Amino acid sequence: MTQRTTPQRVEGTSRIEAFSDGVIAIIVTLLIFEIRVPALTDLSNPGVFTTLLGLAPKFISFAVSFFTVAIFWVNHHHFFSRVTHSNWKLLWYNNLLLFWLAVVPFTTAFIGDHPTQPVVVSIYALTLCLAGLGFTLMGSYVFFKSNLMLESVPMSERQREWRRSWLGVGLYGLASLLAFVWVYAALIIVAVLPFLYVVPNLMRETEP
Amino acid sequence: MTQRTTPQRVEGTSRIEAFSDGVIAIIVTLLIFEIRVPALTDLSNPGVFTTLLGLAPKFISFAVSFFTVAIFWVNHHHFFSRVTHSNWKLLWYNNLLLFWLAVVPFTTAFIGDHPTQPVVVSIYALTLCLAGLGFTLMGSYVFFKSNLMLESVPMSERQREWRRSWLGVGLYGLASLLAFVWVYAALIIVAVLPFLYVVPNLMRETEP
Amino acid sequence: MTQRTTPQRVEGTSRIEAFSDGVIAIIVTLLIFEIRVPALTDLSNPGVFTTLLGLAPKFISFAVSFFTVAIFWVNHHHFFSRVTHSNWKLLWYNNLLLFWLAVVPFTTAFIGDHPTQPVVVSIYALTLCLAGLGFTLMGSYVFFKSNLMLESVPMSERQREWRRSWLGVGLYGLASLLAFVWVYAALIIVAVLPFLYVVPNLMRETEP
Amino acid sequence: MTQRTTPQRVEGTSRIEAFSDGVIAIIVTLLIFEIRVPALTDLSNPGVFTTLLGLAPKFISFAVSFFTVAIFWVNHHHFFSRVTHSNWKLLWYNNLLLFWLAVVPFTTAFIGDHPTQPVVVSIYALTLCLAGLGFTLMGSYVFFKSNLMLESVPMSERQREWRRSWLGVGLYGLASLLAFVWVYAALIIVAVLPFLYVVPNLMRETEP
Repeated sequence: MTQRTTPQRVEGTSRIEAFSDGVIAIIVTLLIFEIRVPALTDLSNPGVFTTLLGLAPKFISFAVSFFTVAIFWVNHHHFFSRVTHSNWKLLWYNNLLLFWLAVVPFTTAFIGDHPTQPVVVSIYALTLCLAGLGFTLMGSYVFFKSNLMLESVPMSERQREWRRSWLGVGLYGLASLLAFVWVYAALIIVAVLPFLYVVPNLMRETEP
Repeated sequence: MTQRTTPQRVEGTSRIEAFSDGVIAIIVTLLIFEIRVPALTDLSNPGVFTTLLGLAPKFISFAVSFFTVAIFWVNHHHFFSRVTHSNWKLLWYNNLLLFWLAVVPFTTAFIGDHPTQPVVVSIYALTLCLAGLGFTLMGSYVFFKSNLMLESVPMSERQREWRRSWLGVGLYGLASLLAFVWVYAALIIVAVLPFLYVVPNLMRETEP
Repeated sequence: MTQRTTPQRVEGTSRIEAFSDGVIAIIVTLLIFEIRVPALTDLSNPGVFTTLLGLAPKFISFAVSFFTVAIFWVNHHHFFSRVTHSNWKLLWYNNLLLFWLAVVPFTTAFIGDHPTQPVVVSIYALTLCLAGLGFTLMGSYVFFKSNLMLESVPMSERQREWRRSWLGVGLYGLASLLAFVWVYAALIIVAVLPFLYVVPNLMRETEP
Repeated sequence: MTQRTTPQRVEGTSRIEAFSDGVIAIIVTLLIFEIRVPALTDLSNPGVFTTLLGLAPKFISFAVSFFTVAIFWVNHHHFFSRVTHSNWKLLWYNNLLLFWLAVVPFTTAFIGDHPTQPVVVSIYALTLCLAGLGFTLMGSYVFFKSNLMLESVPMSERQREWRRSWLGVGLYGLASLLAFVWVYAALIIVAVLPFLYVVPNLMRETEP
């Protein structure tokens, strides 16, 4: 693979990582601002408890989104730890990923307001599907079509990570459709899916 | 301790530090946005003074939260200055800490509105208790169960820092319960506790 | 060029890059917060779809601004990758650029509310024109009047980038005026222009 | 100066700089969010112009605060470029500075609403006076009482920067008092003062 057939590459990825860290840090931190402090009418302890209980859907959607976006960050961290160069295509795949992640605070606030409305659940899952797609496209490019990654990363590992990435896209896409049929099944997928990605590269752990 | 029995570790912690710096910087900066600019009805100087005086509970809760979260940052800074490697477990202990810190702007705005309501004070203290717990669990793992820290950090120092970390968890937990019995005692603990942690590692200062 | 005739320079640009990354990361992330979560009156699926469709102008202006500011970042990244030193003049040219970019969330929200109002469209384009001007002035200084850039960057490349930068200023300026005559033409320029700048330095790609 | 008599110091200041960059980047970027997008009742061009003209005090206070906080950043950048080590005292002087800077968005929004109300102008100036005081105290410590700075920085330069720092504190303090006597004089000081600090260290420029 020569430099002539691919876009000009630049050594180092520290600024692309810093920018992504900034965007993702802001997203996870601002999620809490979608939970407005409630106006308390009944100031007795049971009254306040009841009011807080009413915020449960918002808090749960905040927590799910926080950890989902955090998982994107952990995988981003793992992904870029082996990328040695950048070029403008990589920058734009990354910006596409960040664009869809930036929409998450909106869909999180929306699902917090209407946790069982099918359209609302569907666009929540769709946004994560598209963010996952952005990541997967970036993976396709870096793993198979560029010379930006450490050559020592074996093809088997690249393919495993890439398939795993597609799995997330597929499941979020499924949840997005399922929302119109059985909204609770979609909610379960959306809440459980992050756990499958807690370990950036599960398989590697079991190898010597 | 070999790499086989522990998750795969990666050299360097710069991105985990950058991400944490970003999240914590956003938290402390956004706290001020919970103090809404008051609509002034009486534009005379005494009238404006009176309006500003009414913001005192909000300003005090802003200041306490700012310095409390800043202390978490200072201790995070000190903690990671001796961590040389990261793995996915460390990433998740850190994310758990950041999750609870991210809730602080919500509980700060809430306590600013209702500074003596027991439930409100209790969840303010509880959030900090849980953030402290996240830090302590991260400490337990890094100090005693992983090979991520400089081996030159003596066991006595690890144990001292770890006990000190538990002390904070305990006192915030106590404040969280005490709020229902004697709310002012809980408020005093919450306001005074940060000062005990101003120096990242008090003991070390007195040693040669 | 000697140091005596120019302001004292300092080696390295990492902090100016980090600060710019922070500001730009916050701008692109906060754009979404200008789209308020709609209050749903009709909770049927078609009702929610209709409400979401009504948000289309806001979503489109969010997307255009996100990618426009992202392009500024990509070009900033490319520009600074060859800057080796900084001085106070560079800091202030950069701050001027960041100032106008910081206004973009305001004009984005405004154009999202009134996508065909001539004055609103004009100030949207004007803000980007001024941000582009800030970048161009920084370029003039660094390319031609300072000793802050790698000497190996050839004069032909400097001039090409500088002309390209002026082109953006001119087209945004044109859009700003055109808004009063034919608002849709201005909107088209504003939406299409970013694509011309997707590649930081298009010409270089075609060279051997 | 030995390590025994001063707090334990740690090499490097990159995290303290990164955290400060984050906080300051967020402050300057969020200032724009205090200017709410106006609800337009008259959609004719002159009507929109008139509405925008009514935002002038808010835009001017945004611009003054943006550049004032940017100047703090530029001076922070210059200051830390010669600091080689950190200890917990430095962390806390820096946190004190950041605390008062974090209040600036509040006072900026307030002065944007009531640009000639004496109390409002006074607390705007007072906040900057206290931020300046935080910087000056940090300077006193680092310049004269610690071993954290490059020894090659001459005493004459330290004293010049320190005096200059006090000058800012004094003038903002003066503006804070003057607001009650002659509010326009206070406004002029607040608007003009930043320009005196545009160059981090004016004197050095004139030396060979």
